[in-house]
Amino acid sequence: MSIALVIPDRKLEQLQQKLQQQLPGVDIQIWPDIHQPEAVDFAVVWRQPAQSLATFSNLKALQSFGAGVDSILCDSSLPDVPLARIVDPDLTKSMLNYLHGVLLHYQLRFDQFALQQQTQQWKARSPRKIQQLCVLGLGELGKAAVMYFQQLGFQLCGWSATAKQIAGVHCYAGEAEFAQAVAEADLVICLLPLTAHTENLLNDQRLSQFKPGAILVNVARGAIVDDLALLQHLDNGQLSAACLDVFRTEPLPAEHPFWQHKAIKLTPHISAVTNADTAVLQIAENYQRVQAGLPMLNLVDKQRGY
Amino acid sequence: MSIALVIPDRKLEQLQQKLQQQLPGVDIQIWPDIHQPEAVDFAVVWRQPAQSLATFSNLKALQSFGAGVDSILCDSSLPDVPLARIVDPDLTKSMLNYLHGVLLHYQLRFDQFALQQQTQQWKARSPRKIQQLCVLGLGELGKAAVMYFQQLGFQLCGWSATAKQIAGVHCYAGEAEFAQAVAEADLVICLLPLTAHTENLLNDQRLSQFKPGAILVNVARGAIVDDLALLQHLDNGQLSAACLDVFRTEPLPAEHPFWQHKAIKLTPHISAVTNADTAVLQIAENYQRVQAGLPMLNLVDKQRGY
Repeated sequence: MSIALVIPDRKLEQLQQKLQQQLPGVDIQIWPDIHQPEAVDFAVVWRQPAQSLATFSNLKALQSFGAGVDSILCDSSLPDVPLARIVDPDLTKSMLNYLHGVLLHYQLRFDQFALQQQTQQWKARSPRKIQQLCVLGLGELGKAAVMYFQQLGFQLCGWSATAKQIAGVHCYAGEAEFAQAVAEADLVICLLPLTAHTENLLNDQRLSQFKPGAILVNVARGAIVDDLALLQHLDNGQLSAACLDVFRTEPLPAEHPFWQHKAIKLTPHISAVTNADTAVLQIAENYQRVQAGLPMLNLVDKQRGY
Repeated sequence: MSIALVIPDRKLEQLQQKLQQQLPGVDIQIWPDIHQPEAVDFAVVWRQPAQSLATFSNLKALQSFGAGVDSILCDSSLPDVPLARIVDPDLTKSMLNYLHGVLLHYQLRFDQFALQQQTQQWKARSPRKIQQLCVLGLGELGKAAVMYFQQLGFQLCGWSATAKQIAGVHCYAGEAEFAQAVAEADLVICLLPLTAHTENLLNDQRLSQFKPGAILVNVARGAIVDDLALLQHLDNGQLSAACLDVFRTEPLPAEHPFWQHKAIKLTPHISAVTNADTAVLQIAENYQRVQAGLPMLNLVDKQRGY
């Protein structure tokens, strides 16, 4: 019985050490230095390379190191075992804090005052009217965002691929209701999972359905947004601004036009970072559940993709 | 009986109209077009020019159009009648919203990510540790700020010229305790009134007492900060950033070094703007109290300056 950590391009000694404290006596190996692949029955994965799990002939379960699993499911060589993900309350808190900061940034016109500062222009303006918010994606984070901003006094609606219910909030669902969901929103927050259905969802047609002058905040996955369509709709004024924390390719290539666009606020995928301590506890618990023959917590439905 | 509105450089027709609705039958004159100066017994003032009130021989009371009164008290020709100010709950709400936006701006490192965006630099960083806040000035706004951020989970302390008490918060007072008040604060919020005692209070010596790397937010009055000392302490790293909404001269002159400084975030005095509707109700009430021989609400102690 051995755990493999298959998380490329990341220092894993600390994670290994913390996990070892929770699971004394369990062998924890760091990929690619796997000395006993046949002993691995549990793998913690994140953006694993294709075939990297192929030698684990006794693998029983996979544990994503993050909340999203698109970077795991896109591996066509993924073994057919249950996959769980991290559901981190700190991650939710960190995401809500980021979203609140972004909302205040636009409400207080910090974007416009920063541009004015660059040209020594003094022009007082009253706050932007941001009253109606729409949250795309009503999973753990989406629901939390809806409830958080509703409690702060904003008008909320939600949209998701399949019908969801949140008390007191109009939740739209499916293709047919997308236009209605975004029609009145001053600010649209994208918290969708990246699946075959959501890739390029925010394309030319759907961005045209936004309220004129709306602001888009993407904290989900870059590939949900059609980059070119977004640039066009910012340039023609259909959208007044976009705050992007996620990108089709990360790090965002230096030549990408997003960097220099005045209506784009860009952060380097920092809106919600998995807290290692929380992750360790959930990984350890799921490992023990697998050993005991129990189903893991926070299981992913691989067909749906989240 | 007549009201004079002595508020230069501002369109006052709407204010006049709203006030008239509250006080039907009362003559409301807009300075400098005062047709019957001897009829004026109540003046609403804001940055009034010297001698502008001199002809009001029957003046009974003055009402500031804003929360601060330094721009009124600096007039050496000010008649010796009671002065009241606006205490606007919306103003408090608007100030707290601004301060929360500024705090999140720095906590989420939006300042650094904006600089990185300019140079196409992708570098994820975890949030700034902002745990301890110090509020300078514990009047209406200062107390509200202390309670707001304490409820959000931050550690608070306060400082004011004369001793104040806020349940559960260490309130320092007077010159001797200034250094202690700011010594541990990651972020210092200035909400002091501008008086002879607070002018240039944040000078070289006192900025040196800040915690190294602290952030200064000035939403009070520009003249409380020694501009040159602030620039020096930003340049030598004693302060890591400053957010300034108020300036010694407003609008800030185009040649002032604050505009171009990378560690300064600048907004054009928008953190708390008096809501005209709220102000109108308080002005009308105070006018009626004066007519009835009652003391005005929100009276200013002219000796203290607030």
